[in-house]
Amino acid sequence: HLKEIGTTPAIRMKRFKRLLQSKPIVRLMEAHNGLTGLIVENTQINIDGATKEFDGMWLSSLTDSTAKGKPDIECVDVTSRMNTINDILEVTTKPIIFDGDTGGITEHFVFTVKSLERLGVSAVIIEDKIGLKKNSLFGTDVVQTQDSIENFSHKIASGKKAQVTEDFMIIARVESLILKNGINDAVTRAKAYIAAGADGIMIHSKEKSPAEILEFCSIYKTLENRVPLIIVPSSYNSVYENELIAAGANVVIYANHLLRSAYPAMIETAQSILRHGRSLECDQKVMPIREILTLINGGE
Amino acid sequence: HLKEIGTTPAIRMKRFKRLLQSKPIVRLMEAHNGLTGLIVENTQINIDGATKEFDGMWLSSLTDSTAKGKPDIECVDVTSRMNTINDILEVTTKPIIFDGDTGGITEHFVFTVKSLERLGVSAVIIEDKIGLKKNSLFGTDVVQTQDSIENFSHKIASGKKAQVTEDFMIIARVESLILKNGINDAVTRAKAYIAAGADGIMIHSKEKSPAEILEFCSIYKTLENRVPLIIVPSSYNSVYENELIAAGANVVIYANHLLRSAYPAMIETAQSILRHGRSLECDQKVMPIREILTLINGGE
Amino acid sequence: HLKEIGTTPAIRMKRFKRLLQSKPIVRLMEAHNGLTGLIVENTQINIDGATKEFDGMWLSSLTDSTAKGKPDIECVDVTSRMNTINDILEVTTKPIIFDGDTGGITEHFVFTVKSLERLGVSAVIIEDKIGLKKNSLFGTDVVQTQDSIENFSHKIASGKKAQVTEDFMIIARVESLILKNGINDAVTRAKAYIAAGADGIMIHSKEKSPAEILEFCSIYKTLENRVPLIIVPSSYNSVYENELIAAGANVVIYANHLLRSAYPAMIETAQSILRHGRSLECDQKVMPIREILTLINGGE
Amino acid sequence: HLKEIGTTPAIRMKRFKRLLQSKPIVRLMEAHNGLTGLIVENTQINIDGATKEFDGMWLSSLTDSTAKGKPDIECVDVTSRMNTINDILEVTTKPIIFDGDTGGITEHFVFTVKSLERLGVSAVIIEDKIGLKKNSLFGTDVVQTQDSIENFSHKIASGKKAQVTEDFMIIARVESLILKNGINDAVTRAKAYIAAGADGIMIHSKEKSPAEILEFCSIYKTLENRVPLIIVPSSYNSVYENELIAAGANVVIYANHLLRSAYPAMIETAQSILRHGRSLECDQKVMPIREILTLINGGE
Repeated sequence: HLKEIGTTPAIRMKRFKRLLQSKPIVRLMEAHNGLTGLIVENTQINIDGATKEFDGMWLSSLTDSTAKGKPDIECVDVTSRMNTINDILEVTTKPIIFDGDTGGITEHFVFTVKSLERLGVSAVIIEDKIGLKKNSLFGTDVVQTQDSIENFSHKIASGKKAQVTEDFMIIARVESLILKNGINDAVTRAKAYIAAGADGIMIHSKEKSPAEILEFCSIYKTLENRVPLIIVPSSYNSVYENELIAAGANVVIYANHLLRSAYPAMIETAQSILRHGRSLECDQKVMPIREILTLINGGE
Repeated sequence: HLKEIGTTPAIRMKRFKRLLQSKPIVRLMEAHNGLTGLIVENTQINIDGATKEFDGMWLSSLTDSTAKGKPDIECVDVTSRMNTINDILEVTTKPIIFDGDTGGITEHFVFTVKSLERLGVSAVIIEDKIGLKKNSLFGTDVVQTQDSIENFSHKIASGKKAQVTEDFMIIARVESLILKNGINDAVTRAKAYIAAGADGIMIHSKEKSPAEILEFCSIYKTLENRVPLIIVPSSYNSVYENELIAAGANVVIYANHLLRSAYPAMIETAQSILRHGRSLECDQKVMPIREILTLINGGE
Repeated sequence: HLKEIGTTPAIRMKRFKRLLQSKPIVRLMEAHNGLTGLIVENTQINIDGATKEFDGMWLSSLTDSTAKGKPDIECVDVTSRMNTINDILEVTTKPIIFDGDTGGITEHFVFTVKSLERLGVSAVIIEDKIGLKKNSLFGTDVVQTQDSIENFSHKIASGKKAQVTEDFMIIARVESLILKNGINDAVTRAKAYIAAGADGIMIHSKEKSPAEILEFCSIYKTLENRVPLIIVPSSYNSVYENELIAAGANVVIYANHLLRSAYPAMIETAQSILRHGRSLECDQKVMPIREILTLINGGE
Repeated sequence: HLKEIGTTPAIRMKRFKRLLQSKPIVRLMEAHNGLTGLIVENTQINIDGATKEFDGMWLSSLTDSTAKGKPDIECVDVTSRMNTINDILEVTTKPIIFDGDTGGITEHFVFTVKSLERLGVSAVIIEDKIGLKKNSLFGTDVVQTQDSIENFSHKIASGKKAQVTEDFMIIARVESLILKNGINDAVTRAKAYIAAGADGIMIHSKEKSPAEILEFCSIYKTLENRVPLIIVPSSYNSVYENELIAAGANVVIYANHLLRSAYPAMIETAQSILRHGRSLECDQKVMPIREILTLINGGE
């Protein structure tokens, strides 16, 4: 069974900072409901006698929206996102990092910060874009506008002022590489956001090669007031965690992989049943009925 | 993309009855969120020039609970189930049949009926058990108590009185075979529930062979006031839809297959990333990133 | 008791249009939860043998936010507002008009329209402002920016295209008088919004006197393609419904009065208990305990 | 304005125990939404230079149900109650005591305990009844069955085992006096529930006179392992807090007074508007429009 153990919001929230201090890299996997939360919580493998697992959950807006059947354009609002968070909090103990999209306008963002902190979420990541949000991995055919450094810094600072504890983190996501504004712009913004109070920097790229990310990392490493660096290798997926550690990254996020693996499996099952007029054929491949009945603690 | 078209609650609700009248068998697939709703809505295959698809969605309490990481013991309450329904209603048009577990006590069930009907759900199926609900497919090691015919008939009749339209259906699920009370008891109860107002009968079995279900069907066929018969071939999955049609069944429910196919695929992905220290290896098997970004209408 | 009768989303939605056709003025009262919905549903008085009551509910964003303890700046998001609507839908039958604030960006507004229509809400009213929304009745010390006619017309047209039925209405709220842009601007905008597809025009003012509103009405009356006119006499509360009818208004909204009457009564009770060290003194003024127990149908 | 300050779930939860240790009596007032939460949070009076206020909020199932327009029969389920709690948590800092009705079946109650504790609620109070719950203050015409001591003790013990911290409290509500089973039965049950792990005892009565409650208190005072005693003087409202302190009570709950004062005020306003055909007359009595706009922090 998927086991379930206890925690408190305060312990869970602080755990992310402790992991940042104690691990070479903190490994996050997306979760979009209680079950995927449990998968991140409980999946382990053994390599050469050592156990590996994920350190926490990434509350992706892309996978949360997609799981709800809605496009990833911030039309799944904060209250709906909070319902997902609550479902996950109910059954897991590992830390949660929330994908806050643009964070919305500053006057709303301060409420989001308070709500997340209250629930025991460890951090929110917001990106420096304005206008209708589209997923970063779309091509340049979708015009996206980067926020001014001044505005976005104000949003970060306002968020920091709104939080109650010392433990909650606000992480700034720099979209300069995505928007082809160059590494210099990315570094300039990273510095400004850190000065505004950002507790971490996430740098993103949609290139197939990790080259520009690694170049950013090498410059970022030299910054004086550097804060933890977050990397999301969705497009440049050939890069190993060890390379990211060597480059100075502190967190790696596998941002959408559970949903992306579930979807084709479900389509195949649906088609098999339609094709054969019964479920026998797909039942060979799917989780046995007995197993799903006993999957969740308390279910038997 | 997954397309999305419009409907109204009234049109959606009535569509189930129309399907019952016009199709040899109505084919339902479980859905537990917006995305699985869209899969049921849109998946089609072509066989010999003919298109086959699912006719509607089964709001399984097992898969809804499991997706939320909770055991299937009615601890996921009606409001939480309604959130799932609302997410599905937002993005689909096909009819929805709600797995109502025991329906709770009669005084609460009447509220559930009104709420479901208001949202445009076509039918609720309730089972004739009392006490702590456990999934029917558990063995006899878990003691489950069947409700008295009198009590359950009263629950059905109260539900029917609570509904506003002529279109909403209350379907009685007979647990006699599951509880080893014999076919005679099943038939007696089916008759009583029909007399109490049930708009359909669901008969369930946890045998590997469809024999006892088919025997029930052959007797049920001869009943004078028969209402549509619903079959859920989870355990006896060798049976073909054509055999069920021949046996007189009107609805076949594939009750938990999307979730059961998603889970092993997600576990495999999680393990692959842990094993390899990167996502490249699993990315070959999962949905391409470009595809998930454009999966939902409006997403590009 | 407060009685409760049945309706369907379709019947409830259409009822607002029917009222517009059959009544000299349609009278709406704000509701912000199930209980205030029931008050609007059931309160009646008899004058000279005739019965007077409210025709429907106004889902004020001000009172919904205030009831939730949040400022009226659109930080109570659509999902949270939908929870309030659902609570009211559960227990009432009269039509509901939704205060949609600015409607948000167009790409989100189309989802709101679909959701409201699906639930059986009759109309949404959106105002032609952009940026951080503040309640219209604040003074000019809070800078508020009116949207361009072009943008707002596009929002209206997009909303109209998104709806599925012929029955749902999108009403444009003209803020020209609030923002001191003059009656000419208000009329120009009303015409443009009607051309864009608006099913109604709401004109608002924060003057103590109804003079400017009545002047607008007299011009509006002469428009060729006029649609129903909605008036909200919060500031200029001396005006009688009969005067509004004479001026050509079709709907009058009492926009926040239930909450505004509840608050001082609750404060008085809280203070009385603190002052006296018991509840005896305030219990003389409040609803008897027996009465609250039997207030809601099914409660005894 | 109603001010708003920060807290964390852990601090809020513990605060109730600290109040129990430091105050002669802890004074709770019901709240059923964010605004009533803010009233309990902020209302103060000065008597002879000393400030008096409420110490925390009582999440009454009666007022939560009534505010939602539903009868008080546990048909407002836990998820719906949690929505109310979340709205209150968002805007207040004082401790919250949750009216858990019967707690439901033990297998569900353990989930409720975990959820409440996670959110930072300080305590849940459950009553020793089974079957369809009706409010205790109904007469004996409504048959209510008291749970067996064994069953209810098991429910308490299971709840205690489910909680993660040392801070969350489970309080047992003894219905013996309500059900006319006598003071001896009440005392026997109080002892048994304490032995089972109850962190507090609530004793209830529907008499107009406090005599039987005070008699219970005098016996309870002599118990060896006594835990805090909670009193709810809804019917016997002549009793002063000072008398309750003298009798050994530790908590007094004003269980439904905000809602009971709001309702007649709202009815009067609704009737006044209908009678006069305008709001001028009631506007003299209600909160000024300017005041409601600035009531909530951030609202201006």
